Amino acid sequence: MVGMRTDGRKPDDLRPVTIEPGAAPFAEGSALITAGMTRVLCTASVQEEVPPFLKGKGRGWVTAEYSMLPRATSTRTPREITRGRPEGRTQEIQRLIGRALRSVTDFAALGERTIIVDCDCLQADGGTRTAAITGGWVALALAIRGLLKAGAITRDPLAEPVAAVSVGIVGGQAVLDLPYIEDSGADVDMNIVMTASGRLVEIQGTAERSPFSETDLTALLALARKG
Amino acid sequence: MVGMRTDGRKPDDLRPVTIEPGAAPFAEGSALITAGMTRVLCTASVQEEVPPFLKGKGRGWVTAEYSMLPRATSTRTPREITRGRPEGRTQEIQRLIGRALRSVTDFAALGERTIIVDCDCLQADGGTRTAAITGGWVALALAIRGLLKAGAITRDPLAEPVAAVSVGIVGGQAVLDLPYIEDSGADVDMNIVMTASGRLVEIQGTAERSPFSETDLTALLALARKG
Amino acid sequence: MVGMRTDGRKPDDLRPVTIEPGAAPFAEGSALITAGMTRVLCTASVQEEVPPFLKGKGRGWVTAEYSMLPRATSTRTPREITRGRPEGRTQEIQRLIGRALRSVTDFAALGERTIIVDCDCLQADGGTRTAAITGGWVALALAIRGLLKAGAITRDPLAEPVAAVSVGIVGGQAVLDLPYIEDSGADVDMNIVMTASGRLVEIQGTAERSPFSETDLTALLALARKG
Amino acid sequence: MVGMRTDGRKPDDLRPVTIEPGAAPFAEGSALITAGMTRVLCTASVQEEVPPFLKGKGRGWVTAEYSMLPRATSTRTPREITRGRPEGRTQEIQRLIGRALRSVTDFAALGERTIIVDCDCLQADGGTRTAAITGGWVALALAIRGLLKAGAITRDPLAEPVAAVSVGIVGGQAVLDLPYIEDSGADVDMNIVMTASGRLVEIQGTAERSPFSETDLTALLALARKG
Amino acid sequence: MVGMRTDGRKPDDLRPVTIEPGAAPFAEGSALITAGMTRVLCTASVQEEVPPFLKGKGRGWVTAEYSMLPRATSTRTPREITRGRPEGRTQEIQRLIGRALRSVTDFAALGERTIIVDCDCLQADGGTRTAAITGGWVALALAIRGLLKAGAITRDPLAEPVAAVSVGIVGGQAVLDLPYIEDSGADVDMNIVMTASGRLVEIQGTAERSPFSETDLTALLALARKG
Amino acid sequence: MVGMRTDGRKPDDLRPVTIEPGAAPFAEGSALITAGMTRVLCTASVQEEVPPFLKGKGRGWVTAEYSMLPRATSTRTPREITRGRPEGRTQEIQRLIGRALRSVTDFAALGERTIIVDCDCLQADGGTRTAAITGGWVALALAIRGLLKAGAITRDPLAEPVAAVSVGIVGGQAVLDLPYIEDSGADVDMNIVMTASGRLVEIQGTAERSPFSETDLTALLALARKG
Repeated sequence: MVGMRTDGRKPDDLRPVTIEPGAAPFAEGSALITAGMTRVLCTASVQEEVPPFLKGKGRGWVTAEYSMLPRATSTRTPREITRGRPEGRTQEIQRLIGRALRSVTDFAALGERTIIVDCDCLQADGGTRTAAITGGWVALALAIRGLLKAGAITRDPLAEPVAAVSVGIVGGQAVLDLPYIEDSGADVDMNIVMTASGRLVEIQGTAERSPFSETDLTALLALARKG
Repeated sequence: MVGMRTDGRKPDDLRPVTIEPGAAPFAEGSALITAGMTRVLCTASVQEEVPPFLKGKGRGWVTAEYSMLPRATSTRTPREITRGRPEGRTQEIQRLIGRALRSVTDFAALGERTIIVDCDCLQADGGTRTAAITGGWVALALAIRGLLKAGAITRDPLAEPVAAVSVGIVGGQAVLDLPYIEDSGADVDMNIVMTASGRLVEIQGTAERSPFSETDLTALLALARKG
Repeated sequence: MVGMRTDGRKPDDLRPVTIEPGAAPFAEGSALITAGMTRVLCTASVQEEVPPFLKGKGRGWVTAEYSMLPRATSTRTPREITRGRPEGRTQEIQRLIGRALRSVTDFAALGERTIIVDCDCLQADGGTRTAAITGGWVALALAIRGLLKAGAITRDPLAEPVAAVSVGIVGGQAVLDLPYIEDSGADVDMNIVMTASGRLVEIQGTAERSPFSETDLTALLALARKG
Repeated sequence: MVGMRTDGRKPDDLRPVTIEPGAAPFAEGSALITAGMTRVLCTASVQEEVPPFLKGKGRGWVTAEYSMLPRATSTRTPREITRGRPEGRTQEIQRLIGRALRSVTDFAALGERTIIVDCDCLQADGGTRTAAITGGWVALALAIRGLLKAGAITRDPLAEPVAAVSVGIVGGQAVLDLPYIEDSGADVDMNIVMTASGRLVEIQGTAERSPFSETDLTALLALARKG
Repeated sequence: MVGMRTDGRKPDDLRPVTIEPGAAPFAEGSALITAGMTRVLCTASVQEEVPPFLKGKGRGWVTAEYSMLPRATSTRTPREITRGRPEGRTQEIQRLIGRALRSVTDFAALGERTIIVDCDCLQADGGTRTAAITGGWVALALAIRGLLKAGAITRDPLAEPVAAVSVGIVGGQAVLDLPYIEDSGADVDMNIVMTASGRLVEIQGTAERSPFSETDLTALLALARKG
Repeated sequence: MVGMRTDGRKPDDLRPVTIEPGAAPFAEGSALITAGMTRVLCTASVQEEVPPFLKGKGRGWVTAEYSMLPRATSTRTPREITRGRPEGRTQEIQRLIGRALRSVTDFAALGERTIIVDCDCLQADGGTRTAAITGGWVALALAIRGLLKAGAITRDPLAEPVAAVSVGIVGGQAVLDLPYIEDSGADVDMNIVMTASGRLVEIQGTAERSPFSETDLTALLALARKG
C-alpha cells in the first residue's frame, strides 16, 4: 500500500511551486522560487570581465553562489562570516548549481563576460539546492534575454532549460521532492538535474543509512523524470 | 521655494512604508519592512543562553546582525565571506541596531536569554539601517509576545516602541527619509532613533561635504520628529 | 571499434593498483594507495571523544579530511593556508569520503569515539577521491582491528568493504578509471562508491560538456561494477 | 548643586591636555596626545597612490586606522590578530576618525596621494576616539606642512582645524570630557566633532540606559562647544 | 684599522640605552626601553589561569607577544589584521622572547598563573627583538615583585636577569648592537641572549650573504659578552 | 662513562639517512629524505616570476614552505587550515629553510625566476627541520640541474651543498641528531646549518631548561661538524 506522506502528498507529487520572475528589481535577471515552505531568491548579475584563466579567449563564464539567511531554518544558523570561513555544505551546493547552469550555456555565444547567479535561501524546508538550480536558470535566462535585447549578444547562449528535483527512499518507498522532515530521515537521498529534453546533467545519490541497489536507482530516476 | 524631490515627494514626506509581520515563518518573531525601494527582512531568534559576561546574573541580552544580499544594490557587492572578513560599514550598522533595541528593553524582565535580531537587506535604496531598526523592533516585539504567551516571562520587557528615520541636507534643503540618490549627494546625512514618546535614543549626523551649523541640526531634528 | 587509451589500457581496464597497509607507522591505521601515477597516503586516528551533537549517546563518528601536497600536480598549487581558506573542491571531496566511510559503519558498535581518516594526496593524476575512499577504508579497517584486539570494542562496526572508482565518457566511449588527461577532456565524469556486495553507496555524475542520457548512465554503471 | 566629579573636576572642565608634535620621528607627521590618563600616538604617512576608485582623477584621499595596545586598559585585551578579525568597535572608531579628517580636507589641493593617519592608543581612560581625532589632525597638518615645504603641493588642503570632545549625562548632570569611570556609568554618551569655527562635523549621541530629550541634547551641545 | 661606524660608535660600543620602569600605568609590570632610535614598550599582564596543557599541575607559564606600530619604521608597514594573518617574522620574534623569559623562570614558584609579556615596538631602528627581551624581563620582574608584595607568591620565580644583544659582521668587521642601516647590510647577523651570570640562553646566527667560520663565531660571542 | 642512547646509538652517531632523489615525479626537482623514523618529502618548483621587490632586477629568489601531515606524529595535529592560520612553529621553520638555501645560491646566476622548495613532513620523529634543509637542497639542486640542461641558465647558481643537523645536551651529555624522545627532554637543543666546506650558515641554540656555557657550545659545534 502506498501511504500518505506527512504533508498529505502522494509519493510522486511535487510540492506546489511558484516562480516570480523579476523579484529583485536591481538585478539584470531574477526569480523568487517557492516550493512548499522553501523559498530561494535568485539573481543574475552580468559583469563585463572573465576569470583570469579565460582572459582573451572570447568566451564567457557562469558561476553561482549560495547562502542561507541565518533564520531560514527552524533553529538559527550562525552566519559564515561569524565563523570566519565558508562551510563545506555551502561550497558543495554552489559548485553544483554552477555546473548545472554551465552545462546548458554556450560560452562562445555569451562572449567575454561573466554571469554570477546568487541563490539566497530565505526559507529552507528541504530541496533548497534543487530550487536554486531551477530558479537560478530563470534568473540567468532573464539576464541573457536582456543582453539579447540590448544587442550585446546576437544569439542565445542557452541551449535549453535545466531544472532539478530531489528523490529519495523514505521508509522503503521511493518519494519525490522531499521536505526537510522526510529528507532528514531518508535512507537514500538523490538530487537529479535534467534538461527540458530529458537528458541528465548531474546525478548525486547518497545512501544516508544503508547502501542501495541498482533497481532502487532506476525507480528513483523514473520518479525524477516524472517530477 | 520648496522644490520637488527626484521621486516627487515633498521635503517632509516619508516614502510609503509597509510592514509585513510574521514574514519568516520559522522565526519566533519576524517582519518584512518595505520603505520605497528598500526592503529588509528582520527576524528575532530566542536563545536560552546569554554571553559569558552576563552568566548567572538573571539578566538577558539583545543583539543584532545586519547583512545585505549581494544584489540588493544596482551593482553587485561581493559577499563578506568571499573577502574573508566583515566590512566596517556592516559592523557599524549592526552595532547601531543593537544599541537602539537595547535602549527600550528591560533585561531583568527578559530573564537570562538572548534575542538575536537578524536584519537582512533584500533591496537597498537608502535608509536600510533605519528600516532595519524599525522592522527589527517589530520582530523583537513579536518574539517577546510569544514568550509572554508561553509564560516564559511574566512582564513585558519592552518599555515602548522605537523607530528610526534619516534626514539630511540636500542642495541646501532639509529633507526627510533619503533614498540612495539623495543620500549619495547629501551635504549632511543624519540618522535619528526615537521612541514612540518622542525621546531620543541615538543621533548620528555626519557632514559628508562641509560642516554644518547648530541651526541646521535643529531643523533636521524637527523634520525627524515629524517623520 | 574500441580504440586504445592514451596509456595503452582497454576501456574497461583499471590502472595498476597497490595498497601498502601500515605505511604511516605512528597512526592507528594507515594505507598508501597507488593507482597509476596517483598516490594517496591515508591514516586513521582514533580519538576518545565525539562531536558535540553526539555527546552522551553512546555512538561514534567517522569523519574524513582531504588535502593535496602543493606539488602533487604538474604545476604547483598554492597551499590553502596561504590563501587563508579551504577550497570548495577540497570540502566537496572530504565530505564525499566521510559519507562513503560512514555508510558502512555501525556507530553503536564503535562506541563513543571518533575516527578521523586523513587522505593526503602525494601525487595526483586523476581519481584521487576514489583512491582516497578505497585507501581510507583500509586505514579505517586497520584502526578498528586494533580497537578489537585491544578489547576496546567487542564487535566489528564495519559491515563490509567499500571502494570507489571513476567512470566517464571520453570521445563518445565509456571508459573506466580515468587519469587526469582523460578526466579533463571527458564529456561525462562519474564517481561511484560501492560496497563489496555490489550495492551503491554514492553516485555522482556530471555532464562536463553536454547532458547525457539514461542509457549512458546504465553503461557507465555496468563498467563501474566491473571495476 | 553641582557636585565634584571623581577626579575633582567641575562638570565643564576638560582634563589636562598636552600634544607633543613630532613624537614619531620616522613619520611625515606625528603627535602624541595626552588627555588625563589617555594617550594616543598619531602618525600621518604620505603615500603616492590613491584607492582604485580615485585613480586618474587628480584627487587625493585621507584615511585612518585605530588600534589599542593590549595593555592600554586595566585588564588586558587580546590582540585582534589573535582573534583573527577586526572588532566592530575598532572599525566604528576608525571610520569616525577618517570622516572627521576628510571633512576639512580639500582633495583637489592634496593631489593624487593618500595620507594614512594611524592612531594607536597607548593608554585608554575614556575619550580615546576624540583624542585620536584631535591628535590625528595635528599629525595630518604636519605631514601636509611637509608637502607644502617640499613643493609637492602648492596650496594648503586643510580648510581649518578639527577637534573632538565627549560629553555625557552622568547621574543626571551634563558633564564634559568623560574618563572611563564616568563613561561606563553614563546615561547618555555623546561624541562631538567640531571645526575651529564652531561648525559641526559629526555628532554621535547614544542613550546607554534610557532615552534622552531634545533639551538634554541642547545642553550637551553647549557644553561641547565650551570644550 | 678599526673604522668608525655610521653613527660614530666604535665596533664594541652599545647604543645609549635607557629603561623607564612603570611606563604603562595600567599594567602589573612595564618598561619602556630605548636603544638609540629603537623604542619598545613592554608590559607584563598577570592572569590567574594557565594554558590547557598545564591545568591542575600547580605550575605557571610565561608567554610573549610582539608587534610593531605601522609607522615604527621609515616606510609604513600595513597592520597584520589588515593582511588577515600574523607574519612569520612576528611569530619568530615572539617565540624567541617567550623562550628567553621562560629560561630564567621557575614555574613551580610562580604557581598556576600566566604572565603575558607584550612588546610593542613604537620605533624600530634595528635590534627590536633584543630590546624587547631586555625590556620584557624588566616588565616581568616588576609584575613578579608585585605578586611577592601582595603575598600571592612566597619566593621569587626569577633565577637571574636575562638580556639580549645583537652582534654582526659588517664589511668584514665584527660589530656590536647593529642599527637598521648596518643590519640590512650585514654579512652575518647574530642575536645572543645571556643571563647576568654570563650563561647562554639562546644564540641565533645567520649568514645573510655568505657562510661564516667558527673563528667568526668566537669573535662575535666575545663581543656579545662585552655588550 | 658514555651511556647508550634510547635507540642504541652512541652520542656521536647519526641515525641512518637515506635520500631518494626524484621521489615526486611531477616536480622539477625532488627528494624524499629519511632519517631514522623521520621522513620529509621535498620538492622544488620553478616559477618564471619573482616577488614584487625583485621585479626587473635580473635576479632570482629561493623560498621554502614547510608543513606536517596531521598524522606525522604519534598524536594527530589538526591542520592549520582548520585552525585558520599558520602556526608560529611552521613559520619559524620555513623561514629557517629558506635562509639556509638562499645562503648558497647566487641569484644573479639564477636569473629572474623563483624556486619554491616545499618540505612536507610525512613522519616526524625529531629533526624534521634539519632533514628538510638537507633534502630541500637536493631537490633544489636537481631543479637547477634541469635548468642548466635546458639551457635556461648558463652557470650553476649553487655555490656548494648545505646540510643541517641537530645537536643537544641530554642528561648532561652532548649528543648528535636527536629523535623526538631525546629532543623533548633536552637541556639544550641546537640546530646547525653548515656548508660542505664546513662554514656555518645558521646556528640556533636554545636552553630549554637552564642556560648553557660557552664550553658547552664549543662541544656541540664539534659534534655537529662531525655529523
